[in-house]
Amino acid sequence: MKTLASLAGAAVLIALSAPASAQFAKPEDAIKYRQSALSVMGTHFGRLGEMVKGKVPFDAKAAQDNAAVVAEMAKLPWAAFGPGTDKGGNTKAKPEIWTEHAKFKAGSDKLIAEADKLVVASKTGNLDALKTSFSATADTCKSCHDGFKNK
Amino acid sequence: MKTLASLAGAAVLIALSAPASAQFAKPEDAIKYRQSALSVMGTHFGRLGEMVKGKVPFDAKAAQDNAAVVAEMAKLPWAAFGPGTDKGGNTKAKPEIWTEHAKFKAGSDKLIAEADKLVVASKTGNLDALKTSFSATADTCKSCHDGFKNK
Repeated sequence: MKTLASLAGAAVLIALSAPASAQFAKPEDAIKYRQSALSVMGTHFGRLGEMVKGKVPFDAKAAQDNAAVVAEMAKLPWAAFGPGTDKGGNTKAKPEIWTEHAKFKAGSDKLIAEADKLVVASKTGNLDALKTSFSATADTCKSCHDGFKNK
Repeated sequence: MKTLASLAGAAVLIALSAPASAQFAKPEDAIKYRQSALSVMGTHFGRLGEMVKGKVPFDAKAAQDNAAVVAEMAKLPWAAFGPGTDKGGNTKAKPEIWTEHAKFKAGSDKLIAEADKLVVASKTGNLDALKTSFSATADTCKSCHDGFKNK
């Protein structure tokens, strides 16, 4: 029975690991990828933040460009949080990403949805609309970082 | 005369630096950003390469998705090679990026153009079209790496 259970467990692990291992040769690769995507997203989101906070003048075209990159990048990191990528590299990922995966998935889906709304808001050319949507998007960042990212 | 020339030189430097310093607080930030964008691009370009080389089965939808990310990322890194970002962080950038900037710019423009063609090729659903465009895009990577990136 122990052998059967082990085999079944191994089969589940292989099934779960397949997409991640097909995409990334090593956990370090997945970690570097997701950190890179999040970093690029953060740079462009930060530029929107500077406009929203009045640190740089509002530039409707730049806002659109930055929001578009945020929305594109928002889709990418999550596939790189596959099984076995909780360690390796210099990751700040908390174990809860894997133990509370449905919650993590809901959080990333929420970010993707808010980033799409941010693109719509950026196209209005209205700074107040941008501010509202920026704030809603920032809330999704914070929510996930609080629960799933080590300081 | 020396003072005037120095002042003129300083003015040129300030003018050239302005966009970069507005976008990145420190050279390290610019270096991290461009490396992150290039790394994400490389991951998705590598996945296309696996299909093109027959290491993974051709998947037309995956090819489109990967090509789209490559084309989006291809636009991003170059603004982060501003003056003063030749040192700091763990950069492999060669000085020629700044001393032969027109050539570097032509190379990055060529990548952007080839990546756009790669998107078109990926949408045909034809593996041979993808192979041809992948190869042309890969050539632009190699050309710039040979001239502008330390090993």
